[in-house]
Amino acid sequence: MKIAIDVMGGDNAPLEIVKGAVEAADEYLIDIYLVGKSEEIEKILDAKAFNNPRIHIVNATEIIENEDSPTIAIRTKKDSSMVVGMKMLKNGEIDAFVSAGNTGALLAGGLFVVGRIKGIDRPALAPILPGRCGPVMLVDAGANAECKVRNITQFAMMGEIYFKNVMKYEFPRVGLINIGVEEEKGTEFTKECYKALKESNKSFVGNIEGRDILEGKVQVVVADGFTGNVVLKVFEGTAMTILKELKIELMRSFITKIGAFLSKGAFTLFKKKFDYTEHGGAILIGLNGPVIKAHGSSNAKAIKNAIRQAIKCVDGKIIESIKNELEEN
Amino acid sequence: MKIAIDVMGGDNAPLEIVKGAVEAADEYLIDIYLVGKSEEIEKILDAKAFNNPRIHIVNATEIIENEDSPTIAIRTKKDSSMVVGMKMLKNGEIDAFVSAGNTGALLAGGLFVVGRIKGIDRPALAPILPGRCGPVMLVDAGANAECKVRNITQFAMMGEIYFKNVMKYEFPRVGLINIGVEEEKGTEFTKECYKALKESNKSFVGNIEGRDILEGKVQVVVADGFTGNVVLKVFEGTAMTILKELKIELMRSFITKIGAFLSKGAFTLFKKKFDYTEHGGAILIGLNGPVIKAHGSSNAKAIKNAIRQAIKCVDGKIIESIKNELEEN
Repeated sequence: MKIAIDVMGGDNAPLEIVKGAVEAADEYLIDIYLVGKSEEIEKILDAKAFNNPRIHIVNATEIIENEDSPTIAIRTKKDSSMVVGMKMLKNGEIDAFVSAGNTGALLAGGLFVVGRIKGIDRPALAPILPGRCGPVMLVDAGANAECKVRNITQFAMMGEIYFKNVMKYEFPRVGLINIGVEEEKGTEFTKECYKALKESNKSFVGNIEGRDILEGKVQVVVADGFTGNVVLKVFEGTAMTILKELKIELMRSFITKIGAFLSKGAFTLFKKKFDYTEHGGAILIGLNGPVIKAHGSSNAKAIKNAIRQAIKCVDGKIIESIKNELEEN
Repeated sequence: MKIAIDVMGGDNAPLEIVKGAVEAADEYLIDIYLVGKSEEIEKILDAKAFNNPRIHIVNATEIIENEDSPTIAIRTKKDSSMVVGMKMLKNGEIDAFVSAGNTGALLAGGLFVVGRIKGIDRPALAPILPGRCGPVMLVDAGANAECKVRNITQFAMMGEIYFKNVMKYEFPRVGLINIGVEEEKGTEFTKECYKALKESNKSFVGNIEGRDILEGKVQVVVADGFTGNVVLKVFEGTAMTILKELKIELMRSFITKIGAFLSKGAFTLFKKKFDYTEHGGAILIGLNGPVIKAHGSSNAKAIKNAIRQAIKCVDGKIIESIKNELEEN
């Protein structure tokens, strides 16, 4: 299997990206294509595994920065690590592409360079949240601020297929984010979505409220990209604020510090459970090839886990499965 | 000052409601009107403070249940504690009304019985979130699933006035919940809201993302009721899930249990900070009289704090201040 990584994208690029990718090559026995400025990559590899025949360098002279306007960057920076990697995916030279770079540019590049699966109107950004009873996929977390009902039913179908084929769930459950569980709750839009989902999706179990997203009632939660993005960021913000405040309180006195030290093991297990780096990245679902968006602040471990997710997507034939589903219906 | 309490509303009614109200009467030196089934109230008071001249009983024979359809309940249960209390507010017999009952019915009753402030199109549900740098008000958290731009600017104005007059902030800051900080981010609706807020509100500082709501950048966050309700519930759900999971991990071994015991003080302080019962209830802002919705699971302490918030609203002349602001513009 061949996976390409955007070495220049993310807060910790290029060092952590290369480290994570090299570790993944060895651990998962795959071919890794490091896309970016070759002299920088070689410098890092010199100290590590330069002679590893599983590691390949693909030179790309430009970098898409976080501040760049997505569409303009994709159109003008033709030799950026992101565009070069996506072209390789488009041309079938690699099986999947991973980037921790500019999310907007990755979405734009996905549409312009990789292209959509025929029949999917709008690809979506689908991160995995750490639910109490296993992973929960959120589709769409921000690729499409405004959506049509048809987009929502496609998100539901793609999320369902991801859980069946990639995560190997026999009966994944799909829910619609809403402000009440009853069918008549919400806006005109959510009411229409509810009706369409009920008709089109056998895994659809109804509306789900924000407070139940992490509770394990469903594996896939669908929403328009505006709502999904708000959910994702409130989740991240609340978790961050709570852990920050708890740390402040624990460090306030000698006794609580000792207590914190003794209960360190519990905090470690807890953090592992809620750590985004453990759960890989967000798949740009609906593109005609697996593209994984790793978190912007990814370290080597997060990159390795995003690569593992890419491998799972290839193994689970996610693209073919979505195509088959579209053909059958 | 005269405050009426819906004794029959909430998961812990009537006992905890009466307890909290009696405590508030003594602590805040106000007159409390307990609205509900008089024989039940008397039974509870017999064991407590029946002879306290600050406590008054107002008999209401019906109860609006959580399962009741809001509008039908308000129209048919004329002698319910909720409707009776709201009529007292409407008639000027009391200064404010507090209820932990059915939120939808309280909103419907607010519109039909108490009525709107002239010039306010849609009252909103405005809970207070525990921000890291002080309270943060969320307007609207679910009263109006679909909103017009004009509603959003009114929410912003009312939230600003609440912080100026009730919370005594000289310069409160107002933000619009959006999926990016830049003006051009979001949906067509949020873009229009941004423009209108920039023109109409001097305290408006721009868009705010979900992850920054608790960070203290703004005191008032405005959103349509659908988005606001999602924010509130994801916040509640994430906090609940994190604390639940942390508890599980802390109880796993003997050592971590000792650690948890020693750091108990830190957890107590932390919980106090994030405890909704500490922050009172949600004001139904825009009604022609102060109505406070206490959390459905309120205990005596939460009720007492909701009453304190009602007192602050009366002292801060929230209704008159909103009216003045509307007249001036």
